[in-house]
Amino acid sequence: MSVESLTAQLRRFAQDRDWEQFHTPRNLAMALSGEAGELLSLFQWLRDGQVGEWLNDPGNRTAVEHEMADVFGYLLRLADVLDVDLVASLRAKIDVNEQRYPVELARGNALKYTVLAAKRAAQQ
Amino acid sequence: MSVESLTAQLRRFAQDRDWEQFHTPRNLAMALSGEAGELLSLFQWLRDGQVGEWLNDPGNRTAVEHEMADVFGYLLRLADVLDVDLVASLRAKIDVNEQRYPVELARGNALKYTVLAAKRAAQQ
Amino acid sequence: MSVESLTAQLRRFAQDRDWEQFHTPRNLAMALSGEAGELLSLFQWLRDGQVGEWLNDPGNRTAVEHEMADVFGYLLRLADVLDVDLVASLRAKIDVNEQRYPVELARGNALKYTVLAAKRAAQQ
Amino acid sequence: MSVESLTAQLRRFAQDRDWEQFHTPRNLAMALSGEAGELLSLFQWLRDGQVGEWLNDPGNRTAVEHEMADVFGYLLRLADVLDVDLVASLRAKIDVNEQRYPVELARGNALKYTVLAAKRAAQQ
Repeated sequence: MSVESLTAQLRRFAQDRDWEQFHTPRNLAMALSGEAGELLSLFQWLRDGQVGEWLNDPGNRTAVEHEMADVFGYLLRLADVLDVDLVASLRAKIDVNEQRYPVELARGNALKYTVLAAKRAAQQ
Repeated sequence: MSVESLTAQLRRFAQDRDWEQFHTPRNLAMALSGEAGELLSLFQWLRDGQVGEWLNDPGNRTAVEHEMADVFGYLLRLADVLDVDLVASLRAKIDVNEQRYPVELARGNALKYTVLAAKRAAQQ
Repeated sequence: MSVESLTAQLRRFAQDRDWEQFHTPRNLAMALSGEAGELLSLFQWLRDGQVGEWLNDPGNRTAVEHEMADVFGYLLRLADVLDVDLVASLRAKIDVNEQRYPVELARGNALKYTVLAAKRAAQQ
Repeated sequence: MSVESLTAQLRRFAQDRDWEQFHTPRNLAMALSGEAGELLSLFQWLRDGQVGEWLNDPGNRTAVEHEMADVFGYLLRLADVLDVDLVASLRAKIDVNEQRYPVELARGNALKYTVLAAKRAAQQ
């Protein structure tokens, strides 16, 4: 199922319930952030190395999948309401990041592109 | 371009830079939440009715698209790392929400499903 | 009751339960962000003008107070764990903002300080 | 400096700039969540064990302090605008948590109070 048809399904869900009045850009951005926070809270008391085992519990895995679905759903709704082509936007952002994070400078570190650019300038 | 091929492109981007060490589930959930917060902050001083005009400015629209792309990218990375089928998860969540929010009870209101369930129980 | 004594009370609460192992800086930052998201979600389907009436419902007001308390609690715990003087940090940040947002330039608008600085430079 | 006098200082800062029009409850909740996300993003590519060393860098420490100050400032503004007594709310929440997380049940684990309650019920 494509992003387009999921978007259409979510739009119909909102229309059927007369919920478009609630789905303003600000509200959807708030809902998206709230759901991202709920996803985050599932991981908040684990140590880095414990996540794999924790996810072996089917209840925990389902909880993660539900929160990720909520984030995805609000992201698609927001894109629909704002008439944003999410796939094209991500492809464009990947192109930007290819420029910002050249392989030879970015390999193996998590430095921000502004720091990388300063390093590159200093080398020249 | 499908969700699968975007996911593969993002994975290759991370592999090329030896960034998989940074892309743990907890870190990606943090990055996702941070980007959702940046998206939110673009809208934070507007009034509900001002968003449309504000988005007519191409710089503002591009900023929104970039932040939405960042959210989408980290969501896809997290799904890849956790081996979650994001599309299937969203379809499953829509099915759950069809049950939780029956059209005749949910129409025109933003009540939570737990409140709707209590109303339904009281009616019977 | 002062910030110091609240901080001490929260520390004792954690110590009594042997929870200091969970209260790492990363985990507390995640918990803080998760609670900020829960606070946000209370407001997500309201319109700007509806908040006052909505808060007249004692249950809604209490929900807001509880989420704000959770944010405050995790912020104090994080400051304690990182040995950050929160009050001094806020006073220092207010001083920075006095410089960034001079009254005559910032009055009545919500422009970012970087934009204000560019305007000021253009005027000179 | 007390919470009250910080609150008064922040209010005056907003009044001097005619910013009270922007400081609606929804907007302040969005700003609070956005700043919590920025704080989070500082920690997002670290491993749990790296935070201490990372904070030895004065620039990193200052960045953390600034983001924490931003969170604190918006939390105080929101409390002021909503007429919430933040200190009293936190003390009330601590009392709730004393009930929810009895020392003998909560010691050394990070289980949610609903799970603890179920365990307690099963024991009786």
